[in-house]
Amino acid sequence: MTATPRIVRRLTGNFLEDFVPGQVFRHKGGKTVTEGLFTTFTEFAMTANPLAKNARYARAYGYQGLVCPPGLAMLVAFSQTVEDVSENARANLEYIDMRFGAPVYIGDTIEVETRVLGIKASASRPNLGIVHVQSTARKNIGARDEGVVLTWQRKVQVYKRDDAASLHEGEVEPEKVECSLWLPPWSPKTDYKALAHLSSPDSYFEDLEPGTRIEHSRGRTMTSEHIHLTAVLDNTSQVHCNQFMIDLDPKQYVGGQLIIFGGIPFVLCLGLSSPDVGDNALGDLVYRTGRHTAPLFAGDTVFAATEVRGKRDLPSRPDLGIVETRLLGHKFERAEGAQNTDAPPGWKKTQIFELDREIAVKRRSHYAG
Amino acid sequence: MTATPRIVRRLTGNFLEDFVPGQVFRHKGGKTVTEGLFTTFTEFAMTANPLAKNARYARAYGYQGLVCPPGLAMLVAFSQTVEDVSENARANLEYIDMRFGAPVYIGDTIEVETRVLGIKASASRPNLGIVHVQSTARKNIGARDEGVVLTWQRKVQVYKRDDAASLHEGEVEPEKVECSLWLPPWSPKTDYKALAHLSSPDSYFEDLEPGTRIEHSRGRTMTSEHIHLTAVLDNTSQVHCNQFMIDLDPKQYVGGQLIIFGGIPFVLCLGLSSPDVGDNALGDLVYRTGRHTAPLFAGDTVFAATEVRGKRDLPSRPDLGIVETRLLGHKFERAEGAQNTDAPPGWKKTQIFELDREIAVKRRSHYAG
Amino acid sequence: MTATPRIVRRLTGNFLEDFVPGQVFRHKGGKTVTEGLFTTFTEFAMTANPLAKNARYARAYGYQGLVCPPGLAMLVAFSQTVEDVSENARANLEYIDMRFGAPVYIGDTIEVETRVLGIKASASRPNLGIVHVQSTARKNIGARDEGVVLTWQRKVQVYKRDDAASLHEGEVEPEKVECSLWLPPWSPKTDYKALAHLSSPDSYFEDLEPGTRIEHSRGRTMTSEHIHLTAVLDNTSQVHCNQFMIDLDPKQYVGGQLIIFGGIPFVLCLGLSSPDVGDNALGDLVYRTGRHTAPLFAGDTVFAATEVRGKRDLPSRPDLGIVETRLLGHKFERAEGAQNTDAPPGWKKTQIFELDREIAVKRRSHYAG
Repeated sequence: MTATPRIVRRLTGNFLEDFVPGQVFRHKGGKTVTEGLFTTFTEFAMTANPLAKNARYARAYGYQGLVCPPGLAMLVAFSQTVEDVSENARANLEYIDMRFGAPVYIGDTIEVETRVLGIKASASRPNLGIVHVQSTARKNIGARDEGVVLTWQRKVQVYKRDDAASLHEGEVEPEKVECSLWLPPWSPKTDYKALAHLSSPDSYFEDLEPGTRIEHSRGRTMTSEHIHLTAVLDNTSQVHCNQFMIDLDPKQYVGGQLIIFGGIPFVLCLGLSSPDVGDNALGDLVYRTGRHTAPLFAGDTVFAATEVRGKRDLPSRPDLGIVETRLLGHKFERAEGAQNTDAPPGWKKTQIFELDREIAVKRRSHYAG
Repeated sequence: MTATPRIVRRLTGNFLEDFVPGQVFRHKGGKTVTEGLFTTFTEFAMTANPLAKNARYARAYGYQGLVCPPGLAMLVAFSQTVEDVSENARANLEYIDMRFGAPVYIGDTIEVETRVLGIKASASRPNLGIVHVQSTARKNIGARDEGVVLTWQRKVQVYKRDDAASLHEGEVEPEKVECSLWLPPWSPKTDYKALAHLSSPDSYFEDLEPGTRIEHSRGRTMTSEHIHLTAVLDNTSQVHCNQFMIDLDPKQYVGGQLIIFGGIPFVLCLGLSSPDVGDNALGDLVYRTGRHTAPLFAGDTVFAATEVRGKRDLPSRPDLGIVETRLLGHKFERAEGAQNTDAPPGWKKTQIFELDREIAVKRRSHYAG
Repeated sequence: MTATPRIVRRLTGNFLEDFVPGQVFRHKGGKTVTEGLFTTFTEFAMTANPLAKNARYARAYGYQGLVCPPGLAMLVAFSQTVEDVSENARANLEYIDMRFGAPVYIGDTIEVETRVLGIKASASRPNLGIVHVQSTARKNIGARDEGVVLTWQRKVQVYKRDDAASLHEGEVEPEKVECSLWLPPWSPKTDYKALAHLSSPDSYFEDLEPGTRIEHSRGRTMTSEHIHLTAVLDNTSQVHCNQFMIDLDPKQYVGGQLIIFGGIPFVLCLGLSSPDVGDNALGDLVYRTGRHTAPLFAGDTVFAATEVRGKRDLPSRPDLGIVETRLLGHKFERAEGAQNTDAPPGWKKTQIFELDREIAVKRRSHYAG
């Protein structure tokens, strides 16, 4: 090959003008959950639910083995949509109606499809618009235990390739996707009390009082590990891992530095909250809405709080109840001379994340009474 | 939820005044050893024993498969005691009589109980005292291969919640816990020599001479990876992972920065020593005493040495012998103008760890002769 | 042990004068591929081939399960040779005739032997010379699926222990090692088209045009994670992980800092190229030659390009073709005032790696037509 080769540059991902309402993406790759992936994310996020840590406990409860925590199921599914939907996005605006279905076990293979629901130009910024999509993750396609594990909508702000391009603006109806949380039956033959010391004594349905806000005690500092974690998820967005791109034009990027993939604080907030509101849950039912309200960078320490907003029965499951919560994430930033009531002197508190979250929580009466 | 919610802050862990002699904690969580956890720690620590690396070798020796190195078994067990015992500790003072039992395999689930043996106020510091505990880790409770994998005592310096609180001072006897190292039988049918090239030729029982000090050749620099590693172990102590807490009052914390969890240099020293004294061992029998003598921080490079202090027969096992060692860890710190015999000019050597360690080592006569 | 112990320092690895032509090393350790190792490296390197990500896909193609990507098989095999061959090396000069054989699955145990082919003194530097070796990696020795997974030669520049030592200069013939890529048969019963959406639509044999150079779009910034990654591979070379050693005499070391193990950019370049040239491959056949052309450090961002240099049929496999490529890796370095055509103003482009690589690529006609 002595001649100068012809140079080919492939742009990856779609731009705003490429999306068409009703269009369906069957995403590439798929992902089998290995024990390596499971440990990296379950433990990274400080999850305290024994279903994700203790196989003896999980099997006694009627699961096949260790259960992926909801945050990990979400990360695996969500990341597969990045290349087609948000590789060229500026920001993820909202998570909507994220519902959980079949449990995800080690060895399960997850594949995802996305339907474009709507495209809308930005009124003020000619190079941007909003794409509204609905994604569904299925496990073990073609096998006996095939099932929907997660379905959700999201709205994302996407760049145009060409500012002058015309758009396929419009809206279609979301599909009706059957997806509700699989729960192992309560069995009178199982000695749940003999396992009760493995989870918190004070995070049962009876303990969670509407009208309270629980400030979770732990914080976790993020490091440059986020680059590796994001790669392990197959999230290919360059704003998380390409420092050279940032260095060429820092002003173009949020904070002028590598931004941490939103899925990381998402699962970290779930994990930080778990000793208080998650470790006696059998699963998360639905995240009605959620959003990232500020960026997170390496060096920031993440904290979380949970507002308990309501409680109700879970039909035909007297052993469980539904707890309606709002999960909040925050960090502190230095602010010379600041005197805020919610932060130490010289610091300000910045909310980074919020998620309306309904959880299926065990009743003490049935599991530890 | 329009009304201002009631704020709830949960303190986690116990303070000095909470402990009562004779009290028993059945720790939360439990932990199943996945292949992810196994690889992260076995390899991180540079372990050279083929039992932990090569399943063909481990099975030929009579194990079910890859064997957790003693440091990993210890980390998994120890970390489970942190929330109840040492989440509010200032320092871990001493490891005592740490004895190994059943081998830990991938897939095993470890659960731990701790008995409080003693509480003693500090004579000089009204906000501190010493808690003495005995912990026992069991695997696969209720299954056919249930067994004790580790039992140990430790003394830890714990803060009081309230300086004025009165203490439950006192002491109870330790329990007698059956726990001695399981060893696969030596089999005349196994061709051990055909496997001998997989471990060092010069680390057999015959090679280790009492009165020698082996300076292990390798060093390993720690990075901020320690935050992730500590989280993966479920060690929840905030001094290892909450940079914001440190920033608020650096003087309050050792070194004014995040301190690396002591379990990390513990296993790293074991790993660094393994090419010279560990890769022909079938296991560690007991750590009679051990302690951290200086803190370790991100950026420090860890080195190790082993003093061979004695040798003796292992009853009824002519193929093995017991080697009595002291494992030492150290790092170097810059010291302007220093001229020390044990460090390069401008540096001083700081010992960080010591452990009295008895190892069951193969005799060349039976395995490679 | 009150007397001062006798100090023993063990030098590890061989020096130039230790090597003898024809000598064979059966390397220590061996390594079983766990799900932890698999995930850490497959995902770290951003591999896009579904054979390494999606067990449903891999099984449908006739593999037993997830398949180690070639870069991981190479890293596991290569690293085992480091202690004996290159622990005391200055630089790895060339990879030669690296051929792949049996697929590597999770659970396989890899062991490696190396034969010394030649030793040559350096004409200009009395303390250095070149060692030429041939290594072969075998899996599951003694089991039914025993097989050669990789064989390769390399040339490495090794230090002498003693500058005055005489050398065993000379050359022997390489052994003939049977090793050719195992490929699952194409089956008329398999519905390959139903899986075609899981890989790129435009990276089939028909799509790759000789005379083109594909600039792969993604970059990946390396962090100090490289220390951990290198340890996980059992690569014990101190120049990758011992910062203290560097600090004592920075001028002695390339770049005056910890250098990233060459295997890391090797697999990273393979991964970065995979969406464009690797995700419709069934495997890599041979790397005829390859070398590292500049060092890589923490903080550098790695990019890759592939020159398509030729195509030919694969005998008796009408469903596949061989694509002859050169894989190139590069990074950008700040260069005050520089105006280069291949870099942004103020930067220069530095090539770090090149590899002549032949790939067995699926034809669209048979798999997606």
